[in-house]
Amino acid sequence: MKILIINGPNLNLLGTREPQHYGTGTMDSVLDALKSQYPRVEFDYYQSNVEGFLIDCLHKTLEEPCDGVVLNAGGYTHTSVALRDAITAIKVPVVEVHISNVHSREEFRHRSLISAVCKGVICGFGLDSYRLGVEALLARS
Amino acid sequence: MKILIINGPNLNLLGTREPQHYGTGTMDSVLDALKSQYPRVEFDYYQSNVEGFLIDCLHKTLEEPCDGVVLNAGGYTHTSVALRDAITAIKVPVVEVHISNVHSREEFRHRSLISAVCKGVICGFGLDSYRLGVEALLARS
Amino acid sequence: MKILIINGPNLNLLGTREPQHYGTGTMDSVLDALKSQYPRVEFDYYQSNVEGFLIDCLHKTLEEPCDGVVLNAGGYTHTSVALRDAITAIKVPVVEVHISNVHSREEFRHRSLISAVCKGVICGFGLDSYRLGVEALLARS
Amino acid sequence: MKILIINGPNLNLLGTREPQHYGTGTMDSVLDALKSQYPRVEFDYYQSNVEGFLIDCLHKTLEEPCDGVVLNAGGYTHTSVALRDAITAIKVPVVEVHISNVHSREEFRHRSLISAVCKGVICGFGLDSYRLGVEALLARS
Amino acid sequence: MKILIINGPNLNLLGTREPQHYGTGTMDSVLDALKSQYPRVEFDYYQSNVEGFLIDCLHKTLEEPCDGVVLNAGGYTHTSVALRDAITAIKVPVVEVHISNVHSREEFRHRSLISAVCKGVICGFGLDSYRLGVEALLARS
Amino acid sequence: MKILIINGPNLNLLGTREPQHYGTGTMDSVLDALKSQYPRVEFDYYQSNVEGFLIDCLHKTLEEPCDGVVLNAGGYTHTSVALRDAITAIKVPVVEVHISNVHSREEFRHRSLISAVCKGVICGFGLDSYRLGVEALLARS
Amino acid sequence: MKILIINGPNLNLLGTREPQHYGTGTMDSVLDALKSQYPRVEFDYYQSNVEGFLIDCLHKTLEEPCDGVVLNAGGYTHTSVALRDAITAIKVPVVEVHISNVHSREEFRHRSLISAVCKGVICGFGLDSYRLGVEALLARS
Amino acid sequence: MKILIINGPNLNLLGTREPQHYGTGTMDSVLDALKSQYPRVEFDYYQSNVEGFLIDCLHKTLEEPCDGVVLNAGGYTHTSVALRDAITAIKVPVVEVHISNVHSREEFRHRSLISAVCKGVICGFGLDSYRLGVEALLARS
Amino acid sequence: MKILIINGPNLNLLGTREPQHYGTGTMDSVLDALKSQYPRVEFDYYQSNVEGFLIDCLHKTLEEPCDGVVLNAGGYTHTSVALRDAITAIKVPVVEVHISNVHSREEFRHRSLISAVCKGVICGFGLDSYRLGVEALLARS
Amino acid sequence: MKILIINGPNLNLLGTREPQHYGTGTMDSVLDALKSQYPRVEFDYYQSNVEGFLIDCLHKTLEEPCDGVVLNAGGYTHTSVALRDAITAIKVPVVEVHISNVHSREEFRHRSLISAVCKGVICGFGLDSYRLGVEALLARS
Amino acid sequence: MKILIINGPNLNLLGTREPQHYGTGTMDSVLDALKSQYPRVEFDYYQSNVEGFLIDCLHKTLEEPCDGVVLNAGGYTHTSVALRDAITAIKVPVVEVHISNVHSREEFRHRSLISAVCKGVICGFGLDSYRLGVEALLARS
Amino acid sequence: MKILIINGPNLNLLGTREPQHYGTGTMDSVLDALKSQYPRVEFDYYQSNVEGFLIDCLHKTLEEPCDGVVLNAGGYTHTSVALRDAITAIKVPVVEVHISNVHSREEFRHRSLISAVCKGVICGFGLDSYRLGVEALLARS
Repeated sequence: MKILIINGPNLNLLGTREPQHYGTGTMDSVLDALKSQYPRVEFDYYQSNVEGFLIDCLHKTLEEPCDGVVLNAGGYTHTSVALRDAITAIKVPVVEVHISNVHSREEFRHRSLISAVCKGVICGFGLDSYRLGVEALLARS
Repeated sequence: MKILIINGPNLNLLGTREPQHYGTGTMDSVLDALKSQYPRVEFDYYQSNVEGFLIDCLHKTLEEPCDGVVLNAGGYTHTSVALRDAITAIKVPVVEVHISNVHSREEFRHRSLISAVCKGVICGFGLDSYRLGVEALLARS
Repeated sequence: MKILIINGPNLNLLGTREPQHYGTGTMDSVLDALKSQYPRVEFDYYQSNVEGFLIDCLHKTLEEPCDGVVLNAGGYTHTSVALRDAITAIKVPVVEVHISNVHSREEFRHRSLISAVCKGVICGFGLDSYRLGVEALLARS
Repeated sequence: MKILIINGPNLNLLGTREPQHYGTGTMDSVLDALKSQYPRVEFDYYQSNVEGFLIDCLHKTLEEPCDGVVLNAGGYTHTSVALRDAITAIKVPVVEVHISNVHSREEFRHRSLISAVCKGVICGFGLDSYRLGVEALLARS
Repeated sequence: MKILIINGPNLNLLGTREPQHYGTGTMDSVLDALKSQYPRVEFDYYQSNVEGFLIDCLHKTLEEPCDGVVLNAGGYTHTSVALRDAITAIKVPVVEVHISNVHSREEFRHRSLISAVCKGVICGFGLDSYRLGVEALLARS
Repeated sequence: MKILIINGPNLNLLGTREPQHYGTGTMDSVLDALKSQYPRVEFDYYQSNVEGFLIDCLHKTLEEPCDGVVLNAGGYTHTSVALRDAITAIKVPVVEVHISNVHSREEFRHRSLISAVCKGVICGFGLDSYRLGVEALLARS
Repeated sequence: MKILIINGPNLNLLGTREPQHYGTGTMDSVLDALKSQYPRVEFDYYQSNVEGFLIDCLHKTLEEPCDGVVLNAGGYTHTSVALRDAITAIKVPVVEVHISNVHSREEFRHRSLISAVCKGVICGFGLDSYRLGVEALLARS
Repeated sequence: MKILIINGPNLNLLGTREPQHYGTGTMDSVLDALKSQYPRVEFDYYQSNVEGFLIDCLHKTLEEPCDGVVLNAGGYTHTSVALRDAITAIKVPVVEVHISNVHSREEFRHRSLISAVCKGVICGFGLDSYRLGVEALLARS
Repeated sequence: MKILIINGPNLNLLGTREPQHYGTGTMDSVLDALKSQYPRVEFDYYQSNVEGFLIDCLHKTLEEPCDGVVLNAGGYTHTSVALRDAITAIKVPVVEVHISNVHSREEFRHRSLISAVCKGVICGFGLDSYRLGVEALLARS
Repeated sequence: MKILIINGPNLNLLGTREPQHYGTGTMDSVLDALKSQYPRVEFDYYQSNVEGFLIDCLHKTLEEPCDGVVLNAGGYTHTSVALRDAITAIKVPVVEVHISNVHSREEFRHRSLISAVCKGVICGFGLDSYRLGVEALLARS
Repeated sequence: MKILIINGPNLNLLGTREPQHYGTGTMDSVLDALKSQYPRVEFDYYQSNVEGFLIDCLHKTLEEPCDGVVLNAGGYTHTSVALRDAITAIKVPVVEVHISNVHSREEFRHRSLISAVCKGVICGFGLDSYRLGVEALLARS
Repeated sequence: MKILIINGPNLNLLGTREPQHYGTGTMDSVLDALKSQYPRVEFDYYQSNVEGFLIDCLHKTLEEPCDGVVLNAGGYTHTSVALRDAITAIKVPVVEVHISNVHSREEFRHRSLISAVCKGVICGFGLDSYRLGVEALLARS
């Protein structure tokens, strides 16, 4: 079983950026924890600040299939029709996750262009949102 | 450890109502599964179609404390300031859950008045949304 | 043949409340007239000011089937997603009626959240709206 | 007693146009049924695709009085201030009818410019909407 | 002379809920102070979290008349057409009060559906808003 | 010198329609008064309820030139892009007039689609608005 | 007979300011022309850039009555509720005039807060708008 | 093979009206060029300023079938629900064309009510837009 | 103890202006009544139609301190950011009052730019609103 | 003669992605057909999922001139001011094309940020839209 | 060389008002610093809380020319069409400055009515914004 | 001391693109002038058309600290939440600059998503905007 975790813009700074919203944990620690908690799952990880590279990465699942994607699209969540189209174009289920509770922040973060084409949404549980996204995908398998 | 699960209007019909959105599982099966999967957790369950009774139920956690609430407020999610105020007034963390992916349904279901005061949101994973809500609360404990 | 007539908030005051909008007739006289005009139809009547009790009442048609519902949801017409969901969840046809012509009153009364899931709408004919609602249901039978 | 039935644009195609919304009955059958059901009522019928000719027709009731108008203004319902003014200018009561439930169709069909100046609105009962409109006028006489 | 004081949802928690908005005083202390300050006035008090029960309570003034109502509708202030209709239906003057200054809080608290049908509005003076509401009613007598 | 006066929908009813807005004078009396007050001006008059015929009439000024148009477009004022285009297409100055003060009536009468392409606007002076429109054209000559 | 002409902000610059919108004529020449054209009318003139002084000036008509006001409120037309209230408070008819066609300029100039309480509006005829405003007042006398 | 070309309001003036938007070519030259370029296609042409006559013309394709319609609805493009319904009611494919680039003109030209029910849209290529519309229909055949 | 009462535009006309909204009492009678009812309080009074002079007056409290301000900003309530800033800049509590119930009047009177920075709001109690404003300030002392 | 065809995000998947919207043809087949149909035209082709690379590609036409661009900007059509600026900055005519009829899909696809600066728009003809775009450019040459 | 610095409402309080937004420096210190830093420039300074007096002051540059204006319009920035017109009417370049970053404050401070007619905008640099405004004007000289 | 200057999309074309908005100067001349005017400041320069690369560049200041950033985000100013997040994530002050006065251009350029998280904004002074941005940063040091 294989799950792809994709992080969008600014999430390379996890652990240093705005700790009041994103905490002090790093993505490395998240991935390590996931690997030990789900030993039978293979995890791939990709991060980019470039919208188009995130689309490229989603497209690759057409050639190198996986069983699900956990996607934190960061700021592109609220502005990208292109990313939405990419999710629709591929065949694996995508779970949208957010570390912070976007609904208690600025108005422009309340609208997500991708939620409607994802399988489901998980937001507000800190770094644990990634694990819950994996749980949601495993339950579907 | 004690978790309270609250269902709002029309969710007493789970298993019979609009199976294309809500599936054919029943709440009883959900609760049974949770109890066997988390034997160390005590689960309380409450359902009402009356907005004010849901508020009463949330208030009771002030006198009979629990460790968290999993709340599916149904149609009141999108219209109730009073429910939002009740969540703010109590001290236990509340996780908002939805069975269907509300973002791929009618426009008026895209806005939630309670998300901003909940700890986090989980939506779109069918009845598994309840289990993920419990997982999210346990991770916080 | 059985038809359920449901009145929402403030309609218990019919005959005394704002006669310029609602006239001076009472609901008792409406029901008496219906019974004598349609002797082969059995009429049930329910009124409540509580949104959730109206939902409960609609749900009961799942266990005690009837052939149609004539619903005047009063002020909840314009604000209740939960009531809309209840109408969708049951199996009998629901006809939305209004005594006054809501379109010639305040702006916020022009939008109905339930029209889209009802079989049809009748408004503006005074207490005769109830009879026309019954007519509409009988024509469908 | 005399009732005028007016149909607006595209309603000359009744029976062939979009049967999922308008059914397969024709206006001739509607009129025949009305005449046999209400033998003491004289029915006049007019249809036009031209907005201005509909207005002319409404104006004629000033010279050749009738007891009421059943008006299905079709697409002009949502855009015509001029038609609204014509209804205001004449003296007979006008009942707005729609064959389909306009509230469950496209957004732009949810707004009616004429509802506020009609005596009442009936929509969603198929061709039976015309008969209910006649009933509503007779009840007022 | 008789005045009815009605509190809506969550106001049963006064003294414990969000002290930064609502202070630490209780409703009991408010009522005691009113009774000693206005010995010739009889005070009735009602609180409910259920929208429909608040409507029932307002309706009762039709049978057991009083000289005025001081109403803090809490979260229903911003969402309830039904409550507005109940105020219009009764005959005694109703004064809308709020403990906190709703205009310096979230955007959705700035609109009141009931202000237009109340005699006047008092907001932002803490628990003293109730006394000012009573003063306003007495001045009218 | 030649001036064309054009009246739109429902204005053939002047003198009988809604006297509280339009008074009891007739267009004939207006035209007679204009002819005696401005003996050196030739007046043409046209009225139609058909939007397209009004456009035809405006187009005719391209073949039979006149020195100005006084246009009361009635209800089409607020909805007709085609009429606006017709005004732009011709070469004579057009003055928009209204008998009633449209700004103190319904909201939808506050927007005019043709004002921006007319030379000026005169509204609210009863039938005298026509004479003021003529005055405005003569001042330009 | 006495008519008061009031000019609002920036209109002291007439003849020098933005000639493409306001032409090159001066207010002095306008007043001279009015006096010689209407010898039996007494004209008063006032101009200020201060919103409150314009209100003071309108109030003075309560003590020193005149037969009508021609008001060009300039930029305050679009922003001043206070000026609207002043027009409502006095007893003489006020005609709103504009030199340029405000409807063919920026969006924010399309809305007038005072039109609804004036007797009528005249705009777009250059300095001749003032004379037309006087004409409109005389016709009413 | 037979193609119907329909022009809406003001397009009879092609060649004289606003040459900066519509150029100086005439519809006759367009039709001549089409006939010589596509000798195997029979072209019908219709123009009217009357909204209802355009609808009639579209309806005629139900009795005298053709293989496609190239429609320039002019100003009705943006306001006519009735025209939209006519397109939906007939069975031949309709291509929406515009001579000018409507998106670089006034805001109200950016919304088309008919695009969604046409097969496709071509705009901005001057009179060549008609030929491209024909090309698009031929490619579909 | 010292309280400053400030009235904005048009309130110099109290007693003569629009009695249906503002009653027939005068400000002099209000001030006399306040002085006799609260003999230990010193009252200052200021009125101006000029927005900037109202700001000047508020600023003076920085040099000549008082214990509170009762402010009826009239039409500036709905349009003045500058007045809001002045209230924020000074140190004494300001109570916003209105004579009429602004919420039952025109839409543009429903929004107040100053409520959020005042201590509280009192509206709709006629001239008694001033006394209630004083009461509110005394309770705070 | 040289024409540049540019495809934006997700269009590398043509032939596999959402066949109900985009058909099953591939871009290779489109290019082959164009080359054989227009042997005298040289075609360049570029595709990228990265917004900025599309801008780079448009800029290159400043150094390596071509006679026109056929641009399908995909999801960036609706969100990119930067792409619009790039089109404005270059000197060759750009034709906006879409395979599907964007106007009959989701609301957010109805607005194009680039239409206003393109020479024209072609949408809804499947892969034939590219050929029509080429035709439009050739007609201009 | 001569530069005029104009401050709008509440800016007379600089140094005492809301130090979290405006700092503790005074305007005197700003002017002293400017005079010593730019010895060859003559500085004029004007402040008023009255909108109309600010307009008067701008008009004076028509008679007593200067080389540029640095304008901090305070709260009038967001509400004054009249001030905008005054800037358009004069001939010297005007630079809009703000001490605080208005974009990180309340929503209603994000819109400026005057930016579009100023030469440029500088905001957010504390009192240094004035010096940057002077720098911008000098660079233009 | 070190300052980073970042230019967003299309700004590589400075000197050739739309000279009416951006002038004819080049970025090279701007940088040369800055280096000679501020010899003690080290300037770094980066330009990209790719949103994500601009984010990468901002992130680098976390490892290679500088004293401030002058950012012209071009078209991304109005659409990029991701860029806003990047500015928030880093620790150096960022000054937003624009060459043209964006407020006198299209509506969609009036909103900036990044202003609220920048230290301040400078716009409309042509290429001098960059120097003023540097000045603003130096004053802060």
